[in-house]
Amino acid sequence: MSTEDDGPLRAVALGGGHGLQATLSALRRITTDVTAVVTVADDGGSSGRLRRELGLLPPGDLRKALAALSDDGCRLWSEVFEHRFGGNGALAGHAVGNLVLAGLLEVLGDPVAVLDHACRLLGVRGRVLPMSTMPLDMEGDVVGLDEDPTAVRTIRGQVAVASTPGRVKQVRLYSTNGRRGAPTACPEAVRAVHEADVVLLGPGSWFTSVLPHLLVPELHEALVTTSARRVVVLNLVPQPGETAGFSPEQHLDVLSQHAPELRVDSVLADVDSVPTPDRLRAAATALGARTLLDRVAAPATPGRHDPEALAASLEAALERRTDRWR
Amino acid sequence: MSTEDDGPLRAVALGGGHGLQATLSALRRITTDVTAVVTVADDGGSSGRLRRELGLLPPGDLRKALAALSDDGCRLWSEVFEHRFGGNGALAGHAVGNLVLAGLLEVLGDPVAVLDHACRLLGVRGRVLPMSTMPLDMEGDVVGLDEDPTAVRTIRGQVAVASTPGRVKQVRLYSTNGRRGAPTACPEAVRAVHEADVVLLGPGSWFTSVLPHLLVPELHEALVTTSARRVVVLNLVPQPGETAGFSPEQHLDVLSQHAPELRVDSVLADVDSVPTPDRLRAAATALGARTLLDRVAAPATPGRHDPEALAASLEAALERRTDRWR
Repeated sequence: MSTEDDGPLRAVALGGGHGLQATLSALRRITTDVTAVVTVADDGGSSGRLRRELGLLPPGDLRKALAALSDDGCRLWSEVFEHRFGGNGALAGHAVGNLVLAGLLEVLGDPVAVLDHACRLLGVRGRVLPMSTMPLDMEGDVVGLDEDPTAVRTIRGQVAVASTPGRVKQVRLYSTNGRRGAPTACPEAVRAVHEADVVLLGPGSWFTSVLPHLLVPELHEALVTTSARRVVVLNLVPQPGETAGFSPEQHLDVLSQHAPELRVDSVLADVDSVPTPDRLRAAATALGARTLLDRVAAPATPGRHDPEALAASLEAALERRTDRWR
Repeated sequence: MSTEDDGPLRAVALGGGHGLQATLSALRRITTDVTAVVTVADDGGSSGRLRRELGLLPPGDLRKALAALSDDGCRLWSEVFEHRFGGNGALAGHAVGNLVLAGLLEVLGDPVAVLDHACRLLGVRGRVLPMSTMPLDMEGDVVGLDEDPTAVRTIRGQVAVASTPGRVKQVRLYSTNGRRGAPTACPEAVRAVHEADVVLLGPGSWFTSVLPHLLVPELHEALVTTSARRVVVLNLVPQPGETAGFSPEQHLDVLSQHAPELRVDSVLADVDSVPTPDRLRAAATALGARTLLDRVAAPATPGRHDPEALAASLEAALERRTDRWR
C-alpha cells in the first residue's frame, strides 16, 4: 500500500471490454475511488470505423468502462451512450456514446479532459483513463496457420489477433503517430497505478484486453514497481480464437512471458472453471501469489462474472493481508 | 396578455434555422421564460440524412434552438452539439448534437421528453418544442419553371422549395405517418402559444421556416386566437431561391395569404432593409400592426440580426402597450 491514510480504497482496474466492466461493477461495490485504465488498440466495429474515419482514440472500451461506473441516477445518459443505431445505413452499429466521445475528442483534443467531462455527464464516481492518449496498433505472433506447425506468422490488428484460428504466442503494441514507435502511456494512468492500494488485471480477452497494459513500457514499469496489491482475475471460459483451449494456468504463464519481473499477490478464479487446481496453484505460486477459488460466475449469463460475488471474492482477497478497508 | 401575474414575460418564438436563433438570442436578453417552437419539415443535410436513415424528427433546427438558449456555463456541450464531423467518411457533415438527439429519440421515443433532457444538458432556461412530434413533408406551388409563366408546378421537399429558381406561391405540409394526412401539432407547443404574453414570427426563410407554423391546423388556430402580442420580425435580405426579389411588404402579403384571419400587433424591420417604408406601413396596417423601423442588422455579419439591437427593438415594440416588463 502506498499510503497509510484512512481514505477509501484506491482501486485501479486495467483491461477493456466486458472483462473490465465486470471488475468495475464489482469494485464500485467495494469503494468509491475506482480508476479504469482502458486499452486503446481496438480496430473493429463502431470503434474501428471511428478510428479509421476520424483518426481518433477508439472509444468503445472507454464507453463501456464509463457505463459500468455510471451512477444509477444518470441511467438515461448511460442508456443513450450504450444505444446502438440500427437499420442498414451509414450509422448502423454505431453506439451513440462512441459518437459523443468522438465529438468531445474533436472539440477538446485531450482524451483525459474528454473522459472527465463524460464522467460528469454519467455521474461516474472515480475516473476512466486511456492507457495511452494515442490510438495503438497491435500485432501478434501466431503459429498453427500453416502446414508447418512451427511456422510463425505476424498477424496485424486487434480484431485479427483476437479472432485468429491459430495459436497466439506473443503480442506487441505500436504507436502509429506518424511513424511506428513504442507506445507511450497516459501519464495520469501511470500515476494512478503508482498511487493505488490495489490493481486488478483481468478478466477479459487475454492477449487483446489484459496483456496490452504490460506492453506499454511506462505502464509495465508502474505495474511492476507499484506498492499496490496486484490481483489477477482469471476468465470463466477460454475466449474462442485467441485463447481457445488455454487452461487457467496457461493464462498465468502467458502473463509471465510478457512480464517476467511482474509479481502478483492474489490470483482469483471461479472454482468451476478450474479443472486442475493444483496446476493453477503452482503457476500462481511461481508469480508469488495465493490462489482464491470462489463461485463468481453469474448464474444467468454464462461466461460473465456476477458483480456481487466478484466483489465478495475481491474483498476476501484483500482481507488476507489487511482488514483496514472493512 | 393572458394573465395578470408578475412573472417573467412569457415569450414564444416560432421558426427554424438561423432566423429562430436570432429571435431566441434576443429574447433571452429580455426574459427567462422563452419557448422555441421549431419546424420539423427539414429534409436536407445532416437532418435529412438522419430522417431518411432512422425515420426520426429532423433534429437540426431543434439543435440550433437549443444552442441559442444554452447557458454560458454549458458552453462545452453547446460547442460539442454544434460541432460537425469533417473528412469524407460516413459521418462527414453530421452535427454531433443531431446524433445525440437521434439517440435520445430512439431511446425515449417522446420528442418533448428528449428536448427537455437536452435542455438540462445545455442549461437552457426555457423550452424547445417541435411544432409537430412527427416529421412533416413540405410541398410548394411554384411558377416560373416553365416557358408558360402561368404554369404551376408542385415541388416536393423543404430543400427543393427553399432552393427553387421559380417563384413560390404557396406551401403545404403533410404528415407522413403511414398515409399522407394533415399535420398534427405538438400539444405543448399549442399550449405555449395560448399561454404566451408575446409570440414572434420571423425572421427566417419565409416559406420553409416561418410559414410552416401556420400550416399546422391547431397551431394556426392558436396563433390566431391567443391573447398574446403577435410580433412579426422581417428579414434583412431576401433569401436567394424562395424569396429572391421579395420586398418586405410582399413577405407580409404572403403571410396574410396563408393565414387570412391572422392579426398582428407589431411588424419589426431593419430600417436599411426597407426600400419603401410607406408600402410596408400600408401592408402592416392591413394586418392591424404598427411598424417599427430600427437598426437591427449585425455590423460584422451581413444578413444576420444583432441580438442586442433586436432585443432593444423588441422591448420597444412591447413597451408601446405596457411597461410592466421593465
